[in-house]
Amino acid sequence: MSQHLPANMVLPRTGIGIDVHAFAPAEDPQPLWLGGLFWAGEQGLSGHSDGDCVAHAAADALFSACGIGDLGTHFGTDRPEFAGASGVKLLGEAARIVRAAGFEIGNVAVQFVANRPKFGPRREESQRVLSEAANAPVSVSATTSDGLGFTGRGEGISAVATALVYPVTVSEPGPAKGAPHG
Amino acid sequence: MSQHLPANMVLPRTGIGIDVHAFAPAEDPQPLWLGGLFWAGEQGLSGHSDGDCVAHAAADALFSACGIGDLGTHFGTDRPEFAGASGVKLLGEAARIVRAAGFEIGNVAVQFVANRPKFGPRREESQRVLSEAANAPVSVSATTSDGLGFTGRGEGISAVATALVYPVTVSEPGPAKGAPHG
Amino acid sequence: MSQHLPANMVLPRTGIGIDVHAFAPAEDPQPLWLGGLFWAGEQGLSGHSDGDCVAHAAADALFSACGIGDLGTHFGTDRPEFAGASGVKLLGEAARIVRAAGFEIGNVAVQFVANRPKFGPRREESQRVLSEAANAPVSVSATTSDGLGFTGRGEGISAVATALVYPVTVSEPGPAKGAPHG
Ligand SMILES: [Zn+2]
Ligand SMILES: [Zn+2]
Ligand SMILES: [Zn+2]
Repeated sequence: MSQHLPANMVLPRTGIGIDVHAFAPAEDPQPLWLGGLFWAGEQGLSGHSDGDCVAHAAADALFSACGIGDLGTHFGTDRPEFAGASGVKLLGEAARIVRAAGFEIGNVAVQFVANRPKFGPRREESQRVLSEAANAPVSVSATTSDGLGFTGRGEGISAVATALVYPVTVSEPGPAKGAPHG
Repeated sequence: MSQHLPANMVLPRTGIGIDVHAFAPAEDPQPLWLGGLFWAGEQGLSGHSDGDCVAHAAADALFSACGIGDLGTHFGTDRPEFAGASGVKLLGEAARIVRAAGFEIGNVAVQFVANRPKFGPRREESQRVLSEAANAPVSVSATTSDGLGFTGRGEGISAVATALVYPVTVSEPGPAKGAPHG
Repeated sequence: MSQHLPANMVLPRTGIGIDVHAFAPAEDPQPLWLGGLFWAGEQGLSGHSDGDCVAHAAADALFSACGIGDLGTHFGTDRPEFAGASGVKLLGEAARIVRAAGFEIGNVAVQFVANRPKFGPRREESQRVLSEAANAPVSVSATTSDGLGFTGRGEGISAVATALVYPVTVSEPGPAKGAPHG
């Protein structure tokens, strides 16, 4: 008895990403960046970067799908040029790293949990900005935790992402097919 | 050097869904609906609907996979006919919306975190009810948070779901192939 | 008008797994097992097993993808030989159960949320141990919750996993194709 998959199938790989940021304290207000967008008049998130947990979870899901680590692996202290970088910039760089590692991106999906901001009216704008950064479809949605936990108490925002990637065939340049040999 | 996937591959898309509901207060007891089932003698969840966070997370994962928003997008105040609708009804309508948007559903998987109810004996019944609502396989499983957080304190239930969908070829009715033209 | 997928496609199934364990109390210290590794000098997790929430979430994601339950279904009181088993052993047995149920494993991805231990230096070792246990790629990554919630307060560790599995053709032994019949 044997089990098998078709030999020529290209199998996708799934990845998971989680990111949480606390709101900045009232005495040190920050601008809010979330889902690649600036939210005027909203309390910002803390963090050594812009705290965009939606973009960060998306990047982590991509790294996870490829098995190549996480934000700490790629944007740690040995790459100071990314200290304080925007979530959009980090996601774009994550997508570049993933492709350089031999994967194509299927899609990324993120949902964040927060009482604010009201996301619906700007959802498509956020998806456009993040999809452009990753050069692949990124969907973003929102929910609340019904008043429970740290998101319900308004202490921070959490985001969870999944991603699909595909190992790709890399064709090296070579003689054109059918080129004469003699 | 070029990277490529086979041209005729139909790529799945992944989605993520999260939903949380608080238990209704003792002075305003509610029936418990979870995983599409009624749980006699159990403390119910609050919410403008039946609070079935398993069904809601499943619906959100489907919307997320398609990049078409979330429960708020589709069952908000502009669709009053869904106010108070059951989780099963919302999941069925979500599946209909997803198919109308040009996707077929691969499967949906949900796990919820709660101290109660004891889910094992009714797991297959729950999977049957939700799979029938979505007309696609929906798996449901359960765990606890080891006494930690709002689920550990028994304040509410959280659920996380993933889904796979496929963009489908929609064939419009047309002249039969090889039909005579003259 | 009809919607369709190619008839011969082998569709993957997605699964989700969540696991949480509290740190053991100071008066009853435990060794820390996480991601299939022993972490010397670190506070351990409680639980009837080794509390390895990374391995447990991975196993739950596999069961979820197949729609065959969760850790409670397969390693409950009716299988006392798994009481106190290591996460690596449980993950290996979960992979065996999944294959016996007619699925091949694409990959599993886990991210855990914790203040400690510092995971980066041992990430590849963890991935190697868990991938060997599952006989399939298992990726592991880490993040924090920015000081929020039970993980931020250092009360425990949570892990979330996704998995992809494929229903496989099981060929029963039989007469060779084209074998003579007379
Ligand atoms: Zn972050
Ligand atoms: Zn809900
Ligand atoms: Zn566990």
